[in-house]
Amino acid sequence: MNTDFQQVLDEINAAIRPHLGQDGKVAGYIPALARVPARQFGIALRTCDGYEAASGDSAVPFSTQSMSKLFSLTLAMKHLGDQLWERIGREPSGNPFNSLVQLENERGKPRNPFINAGAIAVADRLVTHGQAIDGLLSLISSLCGEAITIDAEVAQSEADTGFRNAALANFMKSFGSLDNDVAQVLHVYFNQCAIRMSCLQAARAAGFLCRDGRHPVTGDHVVSEALTRRINSLMLTCGTYDAAGEFAYRSGLPCKSCVGGGIVAVVPDKLTLCAWSPALDTTGNSLLGMKALEMFVGKTGLSVF
Amino acid sequence: MNTDFQQVLDEINAAIRPHLGQDGKVAGYIPALARVPARQFGIALRTCDGYEAASGDSAVPFSTQSMSKLFSLTLAMKHLGDQLWERIGREPSGNPFNSLVQLENERGKPRNPFINAGAIAVADRLVTHGQAIDGLLSLISSLCGEAITIDAEVAQSEADTGFRNAALANFMKSFGSLDNDVAQVLHVYFNQCAIRMSCLQAARAAGFLCRDGRHPVTGDHVVSEALTRRINSLMLTCGTYDAAGEFAYRSGLPCKSCVGGGIVAVVPDKLTLCAWSPALDTTGNSLLGMKALEMFVGKTGLSVF
Amino acid sequence: MNTDFQQVLDEINAAIRPHLGQDGKVAGYIPALARVPARQFGIALRTCDGYEAASGDSAVPFSTQSMSKLFSLTLAMKHLGDQLWERIGREPSGNPFNSLVQLENERGKPRNPFINAGAIAVADRLVTHGQAIDGLLSLISSLCGEAITIDAEVAQSEADTGFRNAALANFMKSFGSLDNDVAQVLHVYFNQCAIRMSCLQAARAAGFLCRDGRHPVTGDHVVSEALTRRINSLMLTCGTYDAAGEFAYRSGLPCKSCVGGGIVAVVPDKLTLCAWSPALDTTGNSLLGMKALEMFVGKTGLSVF
Amino acid sequence: MNTDFQQVLDEINAAIRPHLGQDGKVAGYIPALARVPARQFGIALRTCDGYEAASGDSAVPFSTQSMSKLFSLTLAMKHLGDQLWERIGREPSGNPFNSLVQLENERGKPRNPFINAGAIAVADRLVTHGQAIDGLLSLISSLCGEAITIDAEVAQSEADTGFRNAALANFMKSFGSLDNDVAQVLHVYFNQCAIRMSCLQAARAAGFLCRDGRHPVTGDHVVSEALTRRINSLMLTCGTYDAAGEFAYRSGLPCKSCVGGGIVAVVPDKLTLCAWSPALDTTGNSLLGMKALEMFVGKTGLSVF
Repeated sequence: MNTDFQQVLDEINAAIRPHLGQDGKVAGYIPALARVPARQFGIALRTCDGYEAASGDSAVPFSTQSMSKLFSLTLAMKHLGDQLWERIGREPSGNPFNSLVQLENERGKPRNPFINAGAIAVADRLVTHGQAIDGLLSLISSLCGEAITIDAEVAQSEADTGFRNAALANFMKSFGSLDNDVAQVLHVYFNQCAIRMSCLQAARAAGFLCRDGRHPVTGDHVVSEALTRRINSLMLTCGTYDAAGEFAYRSGLPCKSCVGGGIVAVVPDKLTLCAWSPALDTTGNSLLGMKALEMFVGKTGLSVF
Repeated sequence: MNTDFQQVLDEINAAIRPHLGQDGKVAGYIPALARVPARQFGIALRTCDGYEAASGDSAVPFSTQSMSKLFSLTLAMKHLGDQLWERIGREPSGNPFNSLVQLENERGKPRNPFINAGAIAVADRLVTHGQAIDGLLSLISSLCGEAITIDAEVAQSEADTGFRNAALANFMKSFGSLDNDVAQVLHVYFNQCAIRMSCLQAARAAGFLCRDGRHPVTGDHVVSEALTRRINSLMLTCGTYDAAGEFAYRSGLPCKSCVGGGIVAVVPDKLTLCAWSPALDTTGNSLLGMKALEMFVGKTGLSVF
Repeated sequence: MNTDFQQVLDEINAAIRPHLGQDGKVAGYIPALARVPARQFGIALRTCDGYEAASGDSAVPFSTQSMSKLFSLTLAMKHLGDQLWERIGREPSGNPFNSLVQLENERGKPRNPFINAGAIAVADRLVTHGQAIDGLLSLISSLCGEAITIDAEVAQSEADTGFRNAALANFMKSFGSLDNDVAQVLHVYFNQCAIRMSCLQAARAAGFLCRDGRHPVTGDHVVSEALTRRINSLMLTCGTYDAAGEFAYRSGLPCKSCVGGGIVAVVPDKLTLCAWSPALDTTGNSLLGMKALEMFVGKTGLSVF
Repeated sequence: MNTDFQQVLDEINAAIRPHLGQDGKVAGYIPALARVPARQFGIALRTCDGYEAASGDSAVPFSTQSMSKLFSLTLAMKHLGDQLWERIGREPSGNPFNSLVQLENERGKPRNPFINAGAIAVADRLVTHGQAIDGLLSLISSLCGEAITIDAEVAQSEADTGFRNAALANFMKSFGSLDNDVAQVLHVYFNQCAIRMSCLQAARAAGFLCRDGRHPVTGDHVVSEALTRRINSLMLTCGTYDAAGEFAYRSGLPCKSCVGGGIVAVVPDKLTLCAWSPALDTTGNSLLGMKALEMFVGKTGLSVF
C-alpha cells in the first residue's frame, strides 16, 4: 500500500499541473502573500506507521495562516480541556470567517475556534496560560521533527493591515471576552498566522490527529483520544470557512484550510495529508488543493463516511 | 459482537431510564405532539449484515417530523442527483431551523435540505418529479419491510398551525425558487412531517446509509455509493439543527434528529441506530436521545473520527 | 399667494417635462403597473383654506399602492388611538420595505405602519374593528369629495403575485401578531393597494393633515390634532421606505410615497401637495416626483425645518 | 411671550422634580459618569432674538457625549458641505447606536453621522481638514460666548474602556473608510465625547439652528440656511439613537440626545432648548429630559408638525 500512495500522489500531481494558473486568485491582502507565484502545487502524506509520500512542490514552504488555528486549538485544548468552550462555541458559523455580525448577535462569543474571532479568543487563552507564540512554535516543531519558524515580514504585514482582526479583538474585549490586552493578543495572532511550513511538514505536524492524539514520533499523547476525535469533528464541521459543508460533501474528510493555499486533511487511524496550491476560490480555500483532496478520496476510497 | 450490542443497548436503557421526565420539554406546538408522555425511551440498531438489537420503548411509534427530511432528500437525490443543488445549498446554517433571515440574505436559496426551508424546497422538487408523499411512503415502507403510514391528526395540526412554514414557502415562491403552488408543496411537507415510525423501524429505514447505499433487504442501490457518502456528510454537518457542531463534537456520528424526540445515526460500514425520547433540549434535539448516542460511542468506540 | 402657487407648479412642470422618460424605471412587478407610460408628470396642491392649483397630468388616476397606508393608518388611529402601537412600532426600519429580517429579530412586531408588514398589521386591526376596505374607501371618498374606487385588475394581480406579502402575513401570524385569517387580511391589503387617485384627489384626501386633523370640506375632526401631528411625524421619519432620511434631508416635508409614482406631502398649517411621475429610483420612490418636491421647497421656502 | 417661557420652564421643573430618582438609570460604563447624582434636572432655552429662560439645575455642567456629534457634524458640513456624504449616510439606522452589523452589511459606510460609527467617520474627516478637537472647542466656545472645555478624566476613561468604538474605527479602517490613523481619530472622538456644558450653554451653542444657520451672537452664517435645514432634519430622523421615531412622535422636534442625560431641541425660527436629567431609559435617552420636552410642546404648541 505504501507504493500505491506514492503513485496516487504522482497521478494527482500530473492531473493537477496542467490547470496551474488557470483559475482562482492568490490572496492579495498583504504584499508578501500577493507575491507568491500561483503556478505551484504540492501534496504530501504521512501514514500512522510513519510511511511518507510526496509529489510536486511538496517541500516549498508557504504561509500557514489559518492552518495555524489547528495547532493553537490543540495547544489550548491540551492546557484547558473542555474548559476552553466557556468563551468559544463549536458550531459552524454560516458567516464569512471575518464577520462581526455573529459576534454581535451572540454577545462576543465566537461561533468556533476556526473563524478569526475564535482563533483570537484561543490566542487570548494561550496568553493567559503562558503559552502563546513560543509554546505554539515549540509544539509544531516537535511534531514536525525540525524547527518551524515565523516569516517576520508576513507577521509585520498582518499587523500593519489587520484592521478587521483588530476590530474583532476590540469587539470581544468590549464584551469582556478577552483576558489580556488587545495589542498583546493580536501580536500572538498575527505571528501565528505567519508560521511557515511545507506540505510535508504540515502532514507531519498534523500526524497526531490520525493516531488518536499520539505524537507521530514519540508516541506520547499530545492530547487525549477523546479530544483528538473532537478536534477532527471540528475540522470537518468548521475547518474550511463557510465551505465546510461543501468540503464534507466532496471529500468527506476533516480538513483545515488557509489563505496561503494549503489544506491539511485527516483520515482517522490511517494518515494525514496536505495539499497546497496558492490560487483560492471565492470561499478563500485553495481551488486545486480541494480538487486534489477530492481526487485522493476518489482514488483511494478513504473517507470517514 | 451481536450479543455485545444487545448488552450495550440494555445498559444504556438502564442508565437512561432513571432520568426520564427530569429535564427537557416535549414539543408543544401542536396538541398531538404535546400529548406524548415524556417518560419514554427506546433505542434500536441494525447492523450491515442484518443483526438487530433493541431496548426500552423501541417499538413505540413516534412522529418522525424532521427525520422525514432524510428520506425526502434521499428520494430527491435518487431522482435528481447533484442537480438538486441548483436551488438548495449544503452548508450549515448558523441560524435556527425555521429562520427566514438566511433566506432573505441568500435570495431564497435555503442553506441546506435539513432546515425547514430546504426541506420545503426538496418537497417542491419531488412534486415536480411526480414523487411527493406516495413516493416517499413507498420508499420508507420498502426500506422498513412493512407499511409505514401518516398520522392524519398530526398532518392536519401541522397544516392548521404551520404559519411559519407557510411564510418560508411563500418567501421562496417570491424569489421564484418553487416550481409548484405553495399550497400543494406545503401539503406534501405537512404530511411528510406526520410520518410515524418506531426506533427499530427508523434504524431499518436508514440501513442503506451504512451499506454504501444498498437497500438493507434487497441489496439493490437505493442511491449510489458516492451519494450515500454525501448524505452522511450532510447529516454530520447539518442534521441536528443549530447543534450540528455539538453533536459532531460529542458523538462524532452522522445524525438526523426530530422534534418528535428521535435521532437516527449512522456508523458507516457497520450499523444504523435510532434513539428516542420525547423531551427536547433548547436546540430542539432529544436530550436523552443525544445522551444515549454519546454513551453508545463511549461504550463501543464507534465514531467516524 | 394663490396665484403664486399656480405659477410655481407650472414652472416645476415646465422644468420637469424635458426629463420625462430619461431615468428611473416604472414598477414592473405586476403587468397592470408595468403598462403605465413613464412619460407622465402631474402636480397638485390644496391649501388649508381650500385654494387649489394643479399642473401637468394632475387629473390622471394612478395606483396609490403604499400611499393607501397613510389612510389605513389614519382610519386605524381614529378607531384605536395609541392602542394601535401594541402590535406595531413607530421607528424607521433601516431595511427594505418588504424585509422579513427585522420581523424575525423583533418577534413579529413590524417596525412601523408604512412598511408592508406594518400595513398588513394595520389591515388586520381594521378587520377586527369591522372597518377594512369599505371603511377605507368611505373615508378617502369623503375626504376627496367624490367616489374613489379600486382597480380590480390591479387588486387581482397583487393577489396573484403577492408571495412576499403572504410570507410577511404568515410570519406575523406565526408570532400571534394577527387576529384574523391570513387570507382575509391579505384580501384587504391587496385591495387597498389597488385604490386609484389622481394627484389632485390625493392632495385633497390628505388635506386634513395640514388642518390639525380637520376634514378639508366639513371641518370635523377626522383625527385629533395630537394624532395628526403624530401621523405627520411618522410620514417624515418612515414615509418613503428606506429613503426617509434622504427625503427629510432634501425636502424637509412629511411625505408618503408609492411605487405607483405618487408622493403626497404636507406643509403643516399651510397645504398638502401631491407630485406624480411613474418612473422610480432604486429606493422605489418616484424620481421626478422627489425632484418636484425639492423644487417646490426651494421656490417657496416652505419646509418644517 | 418672554415671561411665558420662564413660567413654562418653571412649571415643567416643578412637575418633573417629584419624579427625580424614581426611574431610569444613570450611564454606568465609565466611573466618571456613574458618579453623577441621578436626582438632578435642568432646562433652559434661548429664543432667536436672544431672550433666555432657565429653571432647575440649568447651570450644572454635564458630559455632552453624543450631543457633541451635533457640533462635529456642523463643523464638518461647514468645511466639506455635501461632500461629507461620500462616506457617511443620512438614513436612520434601525440598530443600536454602537452596532457593527449595519457597518458590515453596508461595507464600512455608517448609516448616519449620529451613530458612533458615523461620528468617528466625521472625526476622521475633521482630522483630514486640520480641524479636530481644537476646531470643535473653538466653534462651541464661540457659539456659547464663553470658553467650553473637556473633562480630562472622562476623556481618559473613554479611551481606557472604548473597545467598542475601537472596534468600529478599526472596522471602518478595514474597509478603507478612514483617512487617518485609528488611534488619532479615536483620540479626537474620545475627547469630543468629554466636552462639558450646562443646559443653558447647550441651548446657546445650538442657537444657530433656529436662526437659519446664523451665529446666535454675531449673526454671521455658521453654516448656510440650506445646510441648517438639513442638520435639523437629521436631528429629527436620527438624533436620538434608535428612538428617533418615538421622539418625533411624542415631541415633533429635531433633537440630539446624549448618555450624559441632555437633550437639545430646535424649534425652527423660534428657539433652541435643552433639558437635562442624568437617568436614562432603555434606549439611552434621558427619561425625564424627554418627558420635559413633551410637556414643553404640550404647553406651548410649538412643534414642527
